[in-house]
Amino acid sequence: MRRFVIVGHKAVTMPKFSLNDLPGGAGRMDIIARCINSSLFLSHDLRRNVDTYAVLLGEPNPPVTVRFNGEKVRYLSPDERSAAALIKKALEKGAPMTGEEESTPGVYISKRSFEDTISGLDNIIYLHEEGEDIRNVRFTGDETFVLSDHQNLTPEEESVLERKGAKKVSLGDLLYHADHCIVMVNYELDRQGL
Amino acid sequence: MRRFVIVGHKAVTMPKFSLNDLPGGAGRMDIIARCINSSLFLSHDLRRNVDTYAVLLGEPNPPVTVRFNGEKVRYLSPDERSAAALIKKALEKGAPMTGEEESTPGVYISKRSFEDTISGLDNIIYLHEEGEDIRNVRFTGDETFVLSDHQNLTPEEESVLERKGAKKVSLGDLLYHADHCIVMVNYELDRQGL
Repeated sequence: MRRFVIVGHKAVTMPKFSLNDLPGGAGRMDIIARCINSSLFLSHDLRRNVDTYAVLLGEPNPPVTVRFNGEKVRYLSPDERSAAALIKKALEKGAPMTGEEESTPGVYISKRSFEDTISGLDNIIYLHEEGEDIRNVRFTGDETFVLSDHQNLTPEEESVLERKGAKKVSLGDLLYHADHCIVMVNYELDRQGL
Repeated sequence: MRRFVIVGHKAVTMPKFSLNDLPGGAGRMDIIARCINSSLFLSHDLRRNVDTYAVLLGEPNPPVTVRFNGEKVRYLSPDERSAAALIKKALEKGAPMTGEEESTPGVYISKRSFEDTISGLDNIIYLHEEGEDIRNVRFTGDETFVLSDHQNLTPEEESVLERKGAKKVSLGDLLYHADHCIVMVNYELDRQGL
């Protein structure tokens, strides 16, 4: 299973946001939506072997984690509004006291924090410009790739990764948007036949 | 200069489309918008060495070509609505009888067809699963990459490419969305130091 964890530091945690203003009022929910697209879509197909975790840390009720499962997800189209609408539905349902609950087919909501989410996952890869060149890394196809939105991970979030023994992997000399990084990672794993 | 040409077979050619319904009423304008994003954005920067041509072939007034120039473009944000809004503004201005005209800074509109657009460009690369593996091709950084939206290029469009001596290049065994292909191409060129 390929896993992507994307941290939305300002992404809102209530359902009353407008699908017409994802970058503004919804706290850069557009980034989260594009990351869901780039992690899950193939041409005329979905990547069944991907789980994508969106960790929403914006007001008024952080943290909330929404997970999209590539095998089971339905009603997801490639446009930003579509992924954002499924997040909105998850927030409307609300997170259970413990564990996660399915809000629409293949979409799950929980009150898990970034640390909770990471602690439940294995083989953590932190995409970072100081890491080992991705083209020199041999993957297994069972990795968790961690990305941040328009803000860097905080020192506290970085410590969470360090404690889990995360490996730093670099995409090269340039800095890219998170959704573009996900395309590159998926592509590298495809090229490795995983 | 890196150039991308994306063909929107159903993308509307009048400005009265809703930014709230890019996939439907606007003829998969969401694909065009994502291609503009993936061709032009770096993290906190734009790719100054990129020209992106969106060839709109939907009703009621095809063809229209809208060009985004990475060096000069302004008012472009990464979300789909932003690129679509600039296309809308270009369509509101309308195309001149000949040549192209600037509608907003760095965005240009013309009545050029796919054939007109291709005939004015050099070093055409047709991304196609039967082509040479991209990782075996040495680029110069002065190429024109041609992509289609959710529909394949028509036989007529393919002949235009053939007549220009287009080279087929493959991204591998899987089929990807056009915007993801653009991320992969930009990345490969970045990796080649171009």
